[in-house]
Amino acid sequence: MRSPESPLIQAVADVLSRARGRRPRIHCITNAVAQTYTANMLLALGAVPSMTISVEEIGGFVASADALLVNLGTFDPERREATLTALEIAGDERVPWLLDPVFIDRSEPRAAFAKALLSREPVAIRLNRAEFAAIAGNEADEAALKQFALEQLMVVGLTGEIDIVSDGARQASVANGHALMARVTAMGCAGAAINAAFLAVEDDAWLATIASLAVLGVAGEIAAAKSDGPGSFATAILDAVYALDRATLIQRARVS
Amino acid sequence: MRSPESPLIQAVADVLSRARGRRPRIHCITNAVAQTYTANMLLALGAVPSMTISVEEIGGFVASADALLVNLGTFDPERREATLTALEIAGDERVPWLLDPVFIDRSEPRAAFAKALLSREPVAIRLNRAEFAAIAGNEADEAALKQFALEQLMVVGLTGEIDIVSDGARQASVANGHALMARVTAMGCAGAAINAAFLAVEDDAWLATIASLAVLGVAGEIAAAKSDGPGSFATAILDAVYALDRATLIQRARVS
Amino acid sequence: MRSPESPLIQAVADVLSRARGRRPRIHCITNAVAQTYTANMLLALGAVPSMTISVEEIGGFVASADALLVNLGTFDPERREATLTALEIAGDERVPWLLDPVFIDRSEPRAAFAKALLSREPVAIRLNRAEFAAIAGNEADEAALKQFALEQLMVVGLTGEIDIVSDGARQASVANGHALMARVTAMGCAGAAINAAFLAVEDDAWLATIASLAVLGVAGEIAAAKSDGPGSFATAILDAVYALDRATLIQRARVS
Repeated sequence: MRSPESPLIQAVADVLSRARGRRPRIHCITNAVAQTYTANMLLALGAVPSMTISVEEIGGFVASADALLVNLGTFDPERREATLTALEIAGDERVPWLLDPVFIDRSEPRAAFAKALLSREPVAIRLNRAEFAAIAGNEADEAALKQFALEQLMVVGLTGEIDIVSDGARQASVANGHALMARVTAMGCAGAAINAAFLAVEDDAWLATIASLAVLGVAGEIAAAKSDGPGSFATAILDAVYALDRATLIQRARVS
Repeated sequence: MRSPESPLIQAVADVLSRARGRRPRIHCITNAVAQTYTANMLLALGAVPSMTISVEEIGGFVASADALLVNLGTFDPERREATLTALEIAGDERVPWLLDPVFIDRSEPRAAFAKALLSREPVAIRLNRAEFAAIAGNEADEAALKQFALEQLMVVGLTGEIDIVSDGARQASVANGHALMARVTAMGCAGAAINAAFLAVEDDAWLATIASLAVLGVAGEIAAAKSDGPGSFATAILDAVYALDRATLIQRARVS
Repeated sequence: MRSPESPLIQAVADVLSRARGRRPRIHCITNAVAQTYTANMLLALGAVPSMTISVEEIGGFVASADALLVNLGTFDPERREATLTALEIAGDERVPWLLDPVFIDRSEPRAAFAKALLSREPVAIRLNRAEFAAIAGNEADEAALKQFALEQLMVVGLTGEIDIVSDGARQASVANGHALMARVTAMGCAGAAINAAFLAVEDDAWLATIASLAVLGVAGEIAAAKSDGPGSFATAILDAVYALDRATLIQRARVS
């Protein structure tokens, strides 16, 4: 575990401070179940969310956004078309984007779409072990993560009890979080939105991804201590993200 | 009122324990307003929700689900097509399904669609008095409930101040609940999702339906005692479902 | 600031009482992010929400509604078509309707659609300064508000740190509210829904609009005092709207 004095932990805290100060605009193409909670998580963080999936207007929103989130949890033709338009603009305008390929292990058409999106150069990808296997074709061990990150030239954020973040050259793990996080729908989606917000203020996508996992994980631990179950936890974690101060983050972040 | 020692009350508690232990996968075709709350209710219960309505992939989700919920609260062409595809697979794979014909008393096209779905053999239907009248053509008295259940070979769960559950041969009533439940959108939809989860672990759909009404009703009573209004109530009832133990359920269930 | 004894403040309190007593039916065409929170806000107030956007059935819902809300936050073809159908019926049945032209400053197609809707005679419009400039073509100063209200024969509710309400002849300001309201998604949308509910029970749209801003603003102040951040605030404000009594509203409303 890195000590609070480690440069990495300090850098993680810097990312949070910068996101709060700059209030980046984050455009989210996300699933119907996650939209409201994701918007509230970004607002709690201090970012400014927009969520339209209308093809007619998404270009304008993406062009004026500081980062873009593409979450595949609702797989309808409208969102697929909006995604392609949004990525066109994101490429032209150099808006960093993150891919969250939700449930691709349970749907082949979704997995095929996710694979096709890799050529559009996401800066980072967030996924769990089953989703990793579905997109990379390998079990999610260290070598496979490293290889996939190198091949795709992007950061891989593997979520699980302990999260692992690799950019091919560097690897870190984040051991924060709480079991109640798995009892609230869209918690992972909201975490990926924080990740996108951090990409907007930190060019090192590896650091931004670590920071997003540490921030939500620490907030989850704080919230769990104040909660009676998943209902109160879902609101308490928004409060905890909103209130998380630098000292607490540095003290509690379990990054190694 | 059945005493705590009655076999029916014990069986109700068994259903809850079994759902927690088995963590059934429940696929939900539900309305846009209810999706997030329904997913959170199922997670609080210990079930695993999926919510896609994409025709291209719903078949795979239903085939690997343990029960299916069809809620008509959003009546768009996409959901109707998804419903027909889902029911095809549910029939082939013998996945039990429950119909929640929301607001069919206020929309004729919706009522016609609900009637057509009856031939696809739902295991149970959940509805209030106005919805019953719209689909059965009769006022919801005991004889009409019994007749409708017999004709359709399914369990009828009639919700109201006192809920009534009939399978044509047996009838029970559940007197749990709280007035604040009517002040939170999608509470009934979430209750029907619990019902679907219980169908996944209990072959006697009459018992599963009674159990779902008792569980949410008791949780509502517990939550109301800790709430200041409908906002805090909506989160407290998720906590209460999550924390509900066998002894409390047995002691408080008002089934007769 | 009006004193608690002023007739305007008393009239504001009367509007709230009347909405609670009559339980008006409010049909909402609103964006995907706001649907659930808007429904919960209306239920907390004592109104009865319906939210369908299906073209096949929206006519029936609008015809039996007491007011209609049109929020442009999700700008898809389905909602646009539903809006035109709904406004046809609202015109025939004399159902008052309110326009909430969300984010028209960030999307030209949305702004053009909003302008076209003005000819369908909304009773009131709710918008912030940027949205006002996009639809009226002028900065939102007092003269521009007055002129726009007179030209369009409707009430303009301009939201901001201090809200301003003009019907061309009369102007009022409402100074209630709390900074946390901007940290919860759909809070403005939910406020516009309260406004629609008040149009259902108060023919003077200027008074109804003032009342809606005062009610949510006072509830926000009460909720903030009980909250640890935006998560708990979002639920506490529902509780506060639900519990708001006449005396508290009269005492705290800052209308001038």
